[in-house]
Amino acid sequence: MKRLEVALPDRTYPILIGSGLLKQTSEWLPYLPANSIAVVTDSNVAKHYLPTVQAALSEKTVLPIELTPGEANKTLTQCELIISKLLEAKFGRDAMIIALGGGVVGDMAGFAASLYQRGIDFIQMPTTLLAMVDSSVGGKTGVNHPLGKNMMGAFYQPKAVIIDIDTLKTLPDREYAAGLAEVLKYGLIWDADFFEYLRAHQSDLKARHDQCLIDVIARCCEIKADIVAQDEREKGLRAILNFGHTFGHAIEAVTEYKQYLHGEAISIGMCLALKLGVRLKQIPESLLEHTQAWLKAFHLPISLPEGVDPESIWQAMQQDKKREEDQLRLILLEHCGHAIIAKNIEHQTIYNILFS
Amino acid sequence: MKRLEVALPDRTYPILIGSGLLKQTSEWLPYLPANSIAVVTDSNVAKHYLPTVQAALSEKTVLPIELTPGEANKTLTQCELIISKLLEAKFGRDAMIIALGGGVVGDMAGFAASLYQRGIDFIQMPTTLLAMVDSSVGGKTGVNHPLGKNMMGAFYQPKAVIIDIDTLKTLPDREYAAGLAEVLKYGLIWDADFFEYLRAHQSDLKARHDQCLIDVIARCCEIKADIVAQDEREKGLRAILNFGHTFGHAIEAVTEYKQYLHGEAISIGMCLALKLGVRLKQIPESLLEHTQAWLKAFHLPISLPEGVDPESIWQAMQQDKKREEDQLRLILLEHCGHAIIAKNIEHQTIYNILFS
Repeated sequence: MKRLEVALPDRTYPILIGSGLLKQTSEWLPYLPANSIAVVTDSNVAKHYLPTVQAALSEKTVLPIELTPGEANKTLTQCELIISKLLEAKFGRDAMIIALGGGVVGDMAGFAASLYQRGIDFIQMPTTLLAMVDSSVGGKTGVNHPLGKNMMGAFYQPKAVIIDIDTLKTLPDREYAAGLAEVLKYGLIWDADFFEYLRAHQSDLKARHDQCLIDVIARCCEIKADIVAQDEREKGLRAILNFGHTFGHAIEAVTEYKQYLHGEAISIGMCLALKLGVRLKQIPESLLEHTQAWLKAFHLPISLPEGVDPESIWQAMQQDKKREEDQLRLILLEHCGHAIIAKNIEHQTIYNILFS
Repeated sequence: MKRLEVALPDRTYPILIGSGLLKQTSEWLPYLPANSIAVVTDSNVAKHYLPTVQAALSEKTVLPIELTPGEANKTLTQCELIISKLLEAKFGRDAMIIALGGGVVGDMAGFAASLYQRGIDFIQMPTTLLAMVDSSVGGKTGVNHPLGKNMMGAFYQPKAVIIDIDTLKTLPDREYAAGLAEVLKYGLIWDADFFEYLRAHQSDLKARHDQCLIDVIARCCEIKADIVAQDEREKGLRAILNFGHTFGHAIEAVTEYKQYLHGEAISIGMCLALKLGVRLKQIPESLLEHTQAWLKAFHLPISLPEGVDPESIWQAMQQDKKREEDQLRLILLEHCGHAIIAKNIEHQTIYNILFS
């Protein structure tokens, strides 16, 4: 098992990463002092892991809450449903929530925890690779609005993140690969050595080799924790985590969150951002090629699909919440392992990349 | 004009209190650096003060949002409406919200500000006495749930609180009196001298005398700021602000928020809490009598009305969010000017007070 700390100005919380952790209750029960625990999950995850978690909590009052899975259901309505169940169960401010599932479950359960009686404690137990390396760490919670993704939410940190890599065994290949896109992102934006490590360990990753997974997830969490510790509320630096996301979010919006998983859209988005970097002569073409080859090896998409009008992607990008006044704010690479926030790129240049 | 500071661990914000402040834009425009401003208000307040505020912001893009007034409309649905309007107007993270109105407007506008794109800045411009001395200071925001008041919300501090006492001129007597109940509370829980000052200045308060209002509101804000600075998230001390509220909230719930204004329910609640203190021999009967006399002078209710079953109040108190495990947590006075959090009062004693 590996143990990391996320050090924030006002408090610190641990990330535990290991194999078989869900059953090793002595490792994580200390982070759940409450007697009343709501386990928020979805129907896909519940059938695999809810019984294990319920067994671990046999000494407590446990309220399982099963959400309808999928990004399209990350709504204020489902979040209010969590709140209603907590109220019906007469859970007080001393109750806690466990978010057991992928990013959608984690975002909604964390958001509900932030809202319920103005905030109760919660723990993340991510069961997808994407949630393990990205959404469960850093305290971004929220839901979608018909007019935009993650448009309502809160910065709200968990008390602990418990990552049992065994839960990846039931993760479909497509979702696993989508998580790997965000894994590669950490190499690109922060750590060139890690980027090379990932290129060298492609086959271990394909085999979902235990120790490789623990090492990779730990490094991703470490990088994210580093960045979040320096800028919890995304006043500056934290924005680099959105590398590929301005394009990616637009792709998701135009395809109505149906065609791509989040990580798949980010895979395309990163390739577009790298293409832009090559066009602006900021990075060598080889970095784009290495990235594309790695993503392709996991069957991830690397360019806009046939049938999607680049013009509509451009329009959707104008709605991005990282937009400041009339400037599109994009994350680009100065070189592999170092991302920068670029504000003054000519709109025409960005536009052309969509059509290239 | 008076100026106070609310000093929180991570930042400080000002409260300005004066006559004619809405028109003295040079005093408060510096707190509104944004170019896009949503003015959230309700239809009652809009007709009196929205044009003044709009005129003050003539250099900026202003989006007025009028809510349906009343506590019964402090819902997640209305809050989502604010979010939708901000998105339709394509307001970014650099936009700001002004909450122009009473406590309901302030709670919802502040909550919407906390949620929108995970948080944008906002300013409180309270127009009722209750909002000026209580809800606009301290950062509690939120909405009601069918199963309980303020059950969804956030701790979210404004950038500034702008209190123009001239807005009290259009406030109906009944609402003004309801605010005075919370004013007296500050004397009871924190400052015996202020309690005596309020008793001595009854006629100035009845006449809504300008300087008396400024002094009284400033003292209330000062006390609240003191308490909130010591305990922003109500881990302990801040709970004393809920003196009379465990009874009061139950009274509001049982009468379905229709019979009483919040301050009126608190007026009854404080009298019940003082009665309990007398019964427990913690305070002299004279303190109860002085309080009752003062409240009565402003036509505030001081006991449960005919037709309300004390048993139903008791049941509603069990749902209170300040309840910990099986203990009711009540705020009582050790003496005038000093409140304490009491946890181990025999339930039978509390129960009997409702029937006395």
